[in-house]
Amino acid sequence: MNSFNIEFFGYFAAILTTVAFLPQLIKTLKTKKADDVSLVTLIMFILGVGFWIVYGYEISSFPILIANVITFTLNLFILISKIYYARKY
Amino acid sequence: MNSFNIEFFGYFAAILTTVAFLPQLIKTLKTKKADDVSLVTLIMFILGVGFWIVYGYEISSFPILIANVITFTLNLFILISKIYYARKY
Repeated sequence: MNSFNIEFFGYFAAILTTVAFLPQLIKTLKTKKADDVSLVTLIMFILGVGFWIVYGYEISSFPILIANVITFTLNLFILISKIYYARKY
Repeated sequence: MNSFNIEFFGYFAAILTTVAFLPQLIKTLKTKKADDVSLVTLIMFILGVGFWIVYGYEISSFPILIANVITFTLNLFILISKIYYARKY
């Protein structure tokens, strides 16, 4: 495979694994609950993505940085929504 | 930051964002449901992680390859469990 195609796979992978969390956030806001979503998973994942941001910054990788900032933000909103709805309803 | 510390952040990030999905799988198997977990998120995420595996293989990156194979497997089990319990109960 030539390097153009390889990079294409990388970018496509990054877009999918980033945007993937948008439907989860929309679902949570619509149904006003996320009881089945694991709190431990969310916290570990957000923490891990936070470390990816530090890593991306340190190695000056803009794709790693931007993808993980979006993933971090989306999952933080999912976590906040989960906790908010669990207390409210 | 020296390169040892930078690599440490990378490995720590990779471990956290990989192992993070284990509590979700355990929770789903225990509660026998994952209705609040978005199906679209799971499918997009698994597809994206699949592309990360191709990317990791093509650029011969063992850390990317191994981390994504584990993430792929865990999320595939979460998806299968979600569909199975939704049909059964």
